[in-house]
Amino acid sequence: MLGAVESRRQPKARAGRRPAKPLLGRAEIVEAAARVSEAEGIDRVTMRRIAAELSTGAASLYVYVRDTEDLHAAVLDHLLAGVRASRPRGDWRARVRATLVRYAAVLVERPALARMALAAPLTGDNYLALVDRLLGYLFEGGVGEREAAWAVDLLLLVATASAAEHATWRGSARAGAELAELERIVRGADPRTHPNVARAKDELMTVGGGRLGWHIGTVLRGLDRDRRRRRK
Amino acid sequence: MLGAVESRRQPKARAGRRPAKPLLGRAEIVEAAARVSEAEGIDRVTMRRIAAELSTGAASLYVYVRDTEDLHAAVLDHLLAGVRASRPRGDWRARVRATLVRYAAVLVERPALARMALAAPLTGDNYLALVDRLLGYLFEGGVGEREAAWAVDLLLLVATASAAEHATWRGSARAGAELAELERIVRGADPRTHPNVARAKDELMTVGGGRLGWHIGTVLRGLDRDRRRRRK
Repeated sequence: MLGAVESRRQPKARAGRRPAKPLLGRAEIVEAAARVSEAEGIDRVTMRRIAAELSTGAASLYVYVRDTEDLHAAVLDHLLAGVRASRPRGDWRARVRATLVRYAAVLVERPALARMALAAPLTGDNYLALVDRLLGYLFEGGVGEREAAWAVDLLLLVATASAAEHATWRGSARAGAELAELERIVRGADPRTHPNVARAKDELMTVGGGRLGWHIGTVLRGLDRDRRRRRK
Repeated sequence: MLGAVESRRQPKARAGRRPAKPLLGRAEIVEAAARVSEAEGIDRVTMRRIAAELSTGAASLYVYVRDTEDLHAAVLDHLLAGVRASRPRGDWRARVRATLVRYAAVLVERPALARMALAAPLTGDNYLALVDRLLGYLFEGGVGEREAAWAVDLLLLVATASAAEHATWRGSARAGAELAELERIVRGADPRTHPNVARAKDELMTVGGGRLGWHIGTVLRGLDRDRRRRRK
């Protein structure tokens, strides 16, 4: 799995040559990047800055890290270690919920990472472990392979988008302005031209308030019917 | 609604002064931008280019359009007119499905617009009409206000993300590389460390193949259970 990628990026010290400094590896680079990200935000995580943090040149980092984007993805995956370490309790549905809420909580605190997760597929080892865990819960619940794969896709999308939306409110002036405009438009909806928007306007602008939980629950209920039908 | 926004951006010709050219309005600008976008791609839609298209200066455009991003959002909304004009048939569920599939089809052909729709809330008039229509179908199906608002949110997210994912495969070399890496990782999953990913690996990489329809169906089935429970 990603172990293979990492070992490919971990060149062995050449025989008979002692390095002047302790050997730098991808893990040390990602840890340094995560420290800077948590203290100052992901925007401050650049190859140059992390190289300085590790008292080396940026060129040394490129042996282990493709580019800044790769580094940011690795920081996010590093932060997902907490989700991987968690041991949720309850039946399979409760564990799906708890896992997703915990995943979303990592993203919601980190607007730039939330938007990154929404824009491109994650491929880190902790993310893969998260996918594996969610699939396992669904298999335990009797969901078939295709349905489980598609459901995990849907559930992670919902959790990621929910976090990114919360993060948008906090993180981006531009998106904040868009949302303010959206709110103005929704609140001012004319009941003659947009009767349904006018009717649901208070609910349309609710962010939070249990919406993620309801979304997850709706997907799980939808699956549940699928399971029952398949078993008939 | 957006009519108000547009009229704010349509200054009246000053009395007693005849314009040398026919009056430029937001509608003409957006139409020109949509033409260029359809012929050459949204990346070619810049204020300068559209001004040239309309034989005017870029400065004249800023009276009606905030910036390039606003212009791109307006182009997307313009393209959604086709969804608004469609009259799907069948029961409320079939109409929800048909509307979403049609919406996703607009995005999937236009990678950059799909990613834009995923990243920021849409606020155009045709998008609002789409939200109003979907809400109306759900109300017709007996779904309550809060549930309908949250479900429309979820359904549009699913359709947008599905289109953006398809579009990613086509549109971006970078995201294409990420997805190729993801495929390599998923296909190479070690059954000892990631048994569930290994078990579902063929299904995890399925894009298309009825996945959007299944996602929509799952949400609708989930709602259905909600409706029954509320009615008891």
